[in-house]
Amino acid sequence: MSEGPRHSCGVVGMMADTDVVSYIHKALNLIQHRGQESAGIAVFENGMHTVKDNGLVGAALSPRKIEGLTGKVGIGHVRYSTAGSKSVVNAQPLTVEYNNGSISVAHNGELTNYKELKSKYMDKGWSFFADSDTEIVARLLVKNMRTNDDPVKAIRAMMTEVDGAYSLCIMFNDRLFAVRDPYGFRPLVLGEFDDGFMAVSETAALIPLGGRPIRDVMPGEIVEIFSHSYKSYPASGQCPKAHCMFEWVYFARPDSVIDGREVYDVRKRIGMILAEEAPADVDVVMPIPDSGRAHALGFSMASGIPYEEGFMKNRFVDRTFILPTQKLREQAVDMKMNPIKSTVEGRRILIVDDSIVRGTTLRKLIKVLRNAGAKEVHVRVGSPPIIAPCFYGVDMKTRDEFIATKYNVEEIRGILNADSLAYISIEGLVRALDIPETDLCLACVNGKYPTNIPGERHRYQATLKQDFS
Amino acid sequence: MSEGPRHSCGVVGMMADTDVVSYIHKALNLIQHRGQESAGIAVFENGMHTVKDNGLVGAALSPRKIEGLTGKVGIGHVRYSTAGSKSVVNAQPLTVEYNNGSISVAHNGELTNYKELKSKYMDKGWSFFADSDTEIVARLLVKNMRTNDDPVKAIRAMMTEVDGAYSLCIMFNDRLFAVRDPYGFRPLVLGEFDDGFMAVSETAALIPLGGRPIRDVMPGEIVEIFSHSYKSYPASGQCPKAHCMFEWVYFARPDSVIDGREVYDVRKRIGMILAEEAPADVDVVMPIPDSGRAHALGFSMASGIPYEEGFMKNRFVDRTFILPTQKLREQAVDMKMNPIKSTVEGRRILIVDDSIVRGTTLRKLIKVLRNAGAKEVHVRVGSPPIIAPCFYGVDMKTRDEFIATKYNVEEIRGILNADSLAYISIEGLVRALDIPETDLCLACVNGKYPTNIPGERHRYQATLKQDFS
Amino acid sequence: MSEGPRHSCGVVGMMADTDVVSYIHKALNLIQHRGQESAGIAVFENGMHTVKDNGLVGAALSPRKIEGLTGKVGIGHVRYSTAGSKSVVNAQPLTVEYNNGSISVAHNGELTNYKELKSKYMDKGWSFFADSDTEIVARLLVKNMRTNDDPVKAIRAMMTEVDGAYSLCIMFNDRLFAVRDPYGFRPLVLGEFDDGFMAVSETAALIPLGGRPIRDVMPGEIVEIFSHSYKSYPASGQCPKAHCMFEWVYFARPDSVIDGREVYDVRKRIGMILAEEAPADVDVVMPIPDSGRAHALGFSMASGIPYEEGFMKNRFVDRTFILPTQKLREQAVDMKMNPIKSTVEGRRILIVDDSIVRGTTLRKLIKVLRNAGAKEVHVRVGSPPIIAPCFYGVDMKTRDEFIATKYNVEEIRGILNADSLAYISIEGLVRALDIPETDLCLACVNGKYPTNIPGERHRYQATLKQDFS
Amino acid sequence: MSEGPRHSCGVVGMMADTDVVSYIHKALNLIQHRGQESAGIAVFENGMHTVKDNGLVGAALSPRKIEGLTGKVGIGHVRYSTAGSKSVVNAQPLTVEYNNGSISVAHNGELTNYKELKSKYMDKGWSFFADSDTEIVARLLVKNMRTNDDPVKAIRAMMTEVDGAYSLCIMFNDRLFAVRDPYGFRPLVLGEFDDGFMAVSETAALIPLGGRPIRDVMPGEIVEIFSHSYKSYPASGQCPKAHCMFEWVYFARPDSVIDGREVYDVRKRIGMILAEEAPADVDVVMPIPDSGRAHALGFSMASGIPYEEGFMKNRFVDRTFILPTQKLREQAVDMKMNPIKSTVEGRRILIVDDSIVRGTTLRKLIKVLRNAGAKEVHVRVGSPPIIAPCFYGVDMKTRDEFIATKYNVEEIRGILNADSLAYISIEGLVRALDIPETDLCLACVNGKYPTNIPGERHRYQATLKQDFS
Repeated sequence: MSEGPRHSCGVVGMMADTDVVSYIHKALNLIQHRGQESAGIAVFENGMHTVKDNGLVGAALSPRKIEGLTGKVGIGHVRYSTAGSKSVVNAQPLTVEYNNGSISVAHNGELTNYKELKSKYMDKGWSFFADSDTEIVARLLVKNMRTNDDPVKAIRAMMTEVDGAYSLCIMFNDRLFAVRDPYGFRPLVLGEFDDGFMAVSETAALIPLGGRPIRDVMPGEIVEIFSHSYKSYPASGQCPKAHCMFEWVYFARPDSVIDGREVYDVRKRIGMILAEEAPADVDVVMPIPDSGRAHALGFSMASGIPYEEGFMKNRFVDRTFILPTQKLREQAVDMKMNPIKSTVEGRRILIVDDSIVRGTTLRKLIKVLRNAGAKEVHVRVGSPPIIAPCFYGVDMKTRDEFIATKYNVEEIRGILNADSLAYISIEGLVRALDIPETDLCLACVNGKYPTNIPGERHRYQATLKQDFS
Repeated sequence: MSEGPRHSCGVVGMMADTDVVSYIHKALNLIQHRGQESAGIAVFENGMHTVKDNGLVGAALSPRKIEGLTGKVGIGHVRYSTAGSKSVVNAQPLTVEYNNGSISVAHNGELTNYKELKSKYMDKGWSFFADSDTEIVARLLVKNMRTNDDPVKAIRAMMTEVDGAYSLCIMFNDRLFAVRDPYGFRPLVLGEFDDGFMAVSETAALIPLGGRPIRDVMPGEIVEIFSHSYKSYPASGQCPKAHCMFEWVYFARPDSVIDGREVYDVRKRIGMILAEEAPADVDVVMPIPDSGRAHALGFSMASGIPYEEGFMKNRFVDRTFILPTQKLREQAVDMKMNPIKSTVEGRRILIVDDSIVRGTTLRKLIKVLRNAGAKEVHVRVGSPPIIAPCFYGVDMKTRDEFIATKYNVEEIRGILNADSLAYISIEGLVRALDIPETDLCLACVNGKYPTNIPGERHRYQATLKQDFS
Repeated sequence: MSEGPRHSCGVVGMMADTDVVSYIHKALNLIQHRGQESAGIAVFENGMHTVKDNGLVGAALSPRKIEGLTGKVGIGHVRYSTAGSKSVVNAQPLTVEYNNGSISVAHNGELTNYKELKSKYMDKGWSFFADSDTEIVARLLVKNMRTNDDPVKAIRAMMTEVDGAYSLCIMFNDRLFAVRDPYGFRPLVLGEFDDGFMAVSETAALIPLGGRPIRDVMPGEIVEIFSHSYKSYPASGQCPKAHCMFEWVYFARPDSVIDGREVYDVRKRIGMILAEEAPADVDVVMPIPDSGRAHALGFSMASGIPYEEGFMKNRFVDRTFILPTQKLREQAVDMKMNPIKSTVEGRRILIVDDSIVRGTTLRKLIKVLRNAGAKEVHVRVGSPPIIAPCFYGVDMKTRDEFIATKYNVEEIRGILNADSLAYISIEGLVRALDIPETDLCLACVNGKYPTNIPGERHRYQATLKQDFS
Repeated sequence: MSEGPRHSCGVVGMMADTDVVSYIHKALNLIQHRGQESAGIAVFENGMHTVKDNGLVGAALSPRKIEGLTGKVGIGHVRYSTAGSKSVVNAQPLTVEYNNGSISVAHNGELTNYKELKSKYMDKGWSFFADSDTEIVARLLVKNMRTNDDPVKAIRAMMTEVDGAYSLCIMFNDRLFAVRDPYGFRPLVLGEFDDGFMAVSETAALIPLGGRPIRDVMPGEIVEIFSHSYKSYPASGQCPKAHCMFEWVYFARPDSVIDGREVYDVRKRIGMILAEEAPADVDVVMPIPDSGRAHALGFSMASGIPYEEGFMKNRFVDRTFILPTQKLREQAVDMKMNPIKSTVEGRRILIVDDSIVRGTTLRKLIKVLRNAGAKEVHVRVGSPPIIAPCFYGVDMKTRDEFIATKYNVEEIRGILNADSLAYISIEGLVRALDIPETDLCLACVNGKYPTNIPGERHRYQATLKQDFS
């Protein structure tokens, strides 16, 4: 795992006629799956007030901690849990003071030229506090405000300097902006409430709060949010879209709609296309809960093979204690997933997983199924082989960690001890997404990056060899 | 809610050649769904050592708390969370000292003659510490040991005095027994390990630990457990079986097998029979996650109507903060369940729930579906109407809390705002369970109790009037 | 350390026209020094309600935990912290139900015939839950209530069976009693409030709550407490008093008055008598904070040698981290006490400690003083050498742990590396207490026990040899 | 309480041949009295690593949190607890990255021109993260390093810009510096260990760790610390010394030696001088524990009036619960301090307090003494009347909070209900300190500030009017 900044976070911003703190708090609850390391809220009311801490929303923003925090405009953030980094210094929103007040930033994504920019500005005499690319965003905004004193111009100027993935909620004192990078890597949607407007990472946060989705923030677009309207500053030119396919495949909630495609629906279509591309003669199709259900349902629908639940997920597993001998530990393959015998025993089973990175967990689950009496275990995978690192906010940084960079499909099948193994094709995935391939970031599966990454191929570059699939 | 003792707990007991504490700890993890208020372990090694506290297994039996606890024979317990009772005094196992050592008891169930026995023995000069029927069990065992000095005889004698539901793991110093009441209300199974034997509430706890299910403890049976064998003391006569149907319908894990019937499979058959008894002209069948999936799959299989996930469950919901106005609070119907639009919008939907007690949550969920564009919402229920209280360990104590005692099915349909509503028939449920009706406890749905309950009908009584439905 | 039950706890009971929970809570705060392991409160209001948990009063009886607890009569308890015993099962008050309601007991002391009584009643078929002599008290009360149905008779009968040290607050439903054993080992005082009466371990708990001390509960006396009066049931015969001298020397608060003697004043007189019995030619007298101040002041007053503070106690010391090398660890003698150079350097110092059990800490402190430049270090001790175990509630159980059973005074002086060492004589201590020797328990310093202890001498036995001093 | 930055903190820095983390951790423990809000450690070992959090040292720097933190050079910080500011963002050390590595700063004191500097640099385009003057220090160091690339020159340049109170430990990567402002407001001492050198706020932290005090860091001096030596960069000119008299009177530990004067000794001399300046015809002198003991001892020594302990401090008081009626609440004057009757009753008492800010607590204590039977209560105060705010790191910011700005001594005596009241004179205090008045900061008692504070008099200014006393 690399040492650099990593983010797959969730952001929210809201302006309303009423206090927004309870809205933002609940919205963060609803996008908690996007980040469980830290949570924070900044509101503007007679100055900028920021509360943030490590932990889930319920703990980091407990009633005691946000007591007295009120305001009609605010932003919020949940941060991805990265092992080791226990410091609360990197919690967001990040608030800075400058000569015209305060700027507060909540960021989902990852800047690819973070180190270059940091280096460049350190050479100019800047110092940096946190090991976070969000600080670059905030500092550039301050710098640009000095030149222009116009938030939109300051954001535009910042966007010309930074490269990579960023969905942002930004407050310039009491003015609120939602910004999405020109590629649209990470999601960001607008929603309307009876008494306010919200920008948030996923639509799933809108409906339970009584909100109505309006539309996605466009790649490259800046949206200023008011309590009863919003104003768009569209991207100047054509944006080179590059929506991260993993948002649909794995990250986002099934009930969210991202760039016009419902996550559940995309996953179901992935399953359907897998059934076409790699049919199997099996008795039953079963999901890996919870993320793989829609994929498996799609496979079942297209193939006519019955769908059944075959794993029971243990929600209370505590890994504190280990069994006394190695032999017992091996027998006790995986306490996280229990097989349901009537689904598994004596059956030819097909399991559908969303993706394979290392393959270690999947190998264990196949062993669990065989121990439970499965006659055959076939595997279908809802994304193509992962063969290249992500520099846009997903915690997959080194080729060494990918099983598919070291082995071909048949070898992986052998390692997993599956009876058959097939990945969806890139074309199939694109078809399931129903988004032009040119509008997607598929770098992790085709090695072609939408932005310039030193040492990596650009997606518009001539591709001489395609030996990696 | 009544003031009496209530239990739906989980128990485990193990003897092995090796230390059993890690086994018992992990088994409690795996039956944590049966009780989340308190957890405890008692082991015998140079005396009886008991550790127990409030909280989930991970907290109540943290490494710090069970440091130094070892032994080759032990029992464990998880207790149901009952609002209000914060006292740790009722945590189990309950250990008592007597003139020949210690007896420790872990109990799942509820004694129906607890108050009578307590009163009887208080009249004889006994005093009681905890407001718990388990104390009666332990004290009677001590009393009987004085007469017989034989654990089996002491257990038998206790069984002639107490009435009601009890699945017990008992230690008499270093001797371990598993006991099930003559009705077999609550489950209790035996499992074999390479180096030991275990009795535990559900088979689901065996497989992830490398164990193999042997069989259920029989109603009325006493089983002594050794590290490499077990010895049965069968019930003397024919036991009047009365397995609680709710174990399959709702309580137990889908991957458990109770009295020969896999829970997942029973639930699926319930869905199938519902499809026969109460078909519906709908576009899609969807479950209420997580407990209703198998029911809905069964309905889909039997009816041929497609199965889809239509609700996304929010796992992180924190109820601390409320929205500022009543109007908003009503819009934000239920943050616990989000609709998946592609499943719901414009569709005629059938949802399958396992049971209806009060009906309040279901009413909210139907509203959520209608708000999400459902054209019709039909409801099928996997258990007959609940019309009578449970005295055998389920937290349903007063007729007042049941919607089905106040309204008929059509009225309930109206209250829920469903397009149609049907419950499975008692006959259908019995068929799904594939267990003779005479071997089941159906008291909560037919008002006929397998034991004598003052003021209630006995199941063998002539039924003159059937006015309770 | 022995395995038996140990107590040096604090008790309180109150009846008033108003709610007593806040009074009892605050009183427990004020006697927290008597026990820091667990705390509990029982009140009677439509039944007996008991709340108790491990921890200091502030945590064990937090607002959340005692929410809703109210009543006009109640008792409370704080329990001594004994390493290892983490179980909350032994927390008090201990409440039992019997056929005429509930009895709740809070106990300070230790029964010497606990094991005999437990054994006797286990032979009669009783079982016991907790490893606590308080259970014997409660169970005997219940037994006796069956015979008499009169709390006073029941208490009297209990008092004829149990032997040893007990200061008790007892509730029989809503009737409150304060009881002290015939020896008066542990303190117990009565106090009057404008709207109620309280019994509590020390007078120090009365004044800050607005109460007025009335008198001690007499040895062997039973006092029934009402909200506007109290009624005494005096001991039938002459009681063989045996007040524990350690209450004044070490346990109790300086501001408490026990059996007519103020603790601060006794300590000061001890210092004065030490100055007579063992004068020293030194420059300065200094205390070991916090407990030794009065002793040292007394020495200073009687000798005319200036009193100075010479140690600064470090209140925040955290023992988590150790220094990297043994050499450094030895240099860093003791972080708990820092020398004050101007008091110590170049001076001949006399330190007064209340008692010496093992002597290990004192040896370290003398080293600290020598390192800080003390020219001479003389030690005077406010109690005679500890040479016999305590069976009345003090955590000194085995002769092995006492330095004075293995070495004579000169040897101890050498071990401590003191320039001179003297203990107060037994006669001197008795004089300081101004209580007849026959009314004191001096067992730990003279080996003569006021009660029958198998294997130990009774104080009324002929004493053939006095070679133990 | 003002809104500005406030500090009375503790700092430490160490370089050694061995790991310094355990040293720094223990040193922070020993200066915990200087700050209890947050604690932090930064060490350099392959880069700068900073761990900090809210809470006492034991919690903020728990073993889990500092696991793996090692290094041979590091700094540490404890921060003063200011009600309300719960944010961990202001915890120190403050670490910044710049183009030549990292700078980490731990700061005790307060910059008087913080707002001016912040404003000046925000006008130049800088942005600021934390509401802390330490950020200014760190940022100026970075700025200056660009010009000079020499830590000493960078520190010097910073010192020409900032004004006010600062004792600093600074790391430039692996180089460690200790810096004290030209006035020497706050203490900072050097100590030698067998294998390293340390700078720390108080000498009290050296001895328990096996260290030897060398000398104070001089006002205006920069000291570079190595593992076996240190190098001084003395202040260029004569420094206008202004040691804060409150360090001796109240803040520092009695066992510390600051600028050549032991705190205990100074306090004792204060008491002696009070006895000269304001003798009293009383029976006994008693301290307010714990801070006032040395003052009272001094008074007793000089006057010959006996010294006694008259208050017992309640260490466990929990303020959660209040007594049911106002009348009772008034009776229960103060649970924090109990009177010792034998010292108080029927006596003419003199109490010596270190200082009076608001006077509210003292008024309560006098009431406690009168309730306990004191015949007369006389008050002597170890510092002159506080009449002007502190801008150098003490939490006394507004004239409104001082009783002595509103009332004269006789009026204050009446408010306190004392029989007599006298403050030490400024001359007396200076004499007790044995430091030239021109080397002291006495601003809070004479209104003459050693630095330029807009709206306040400078100490070198002609004093036209003296209307503030």
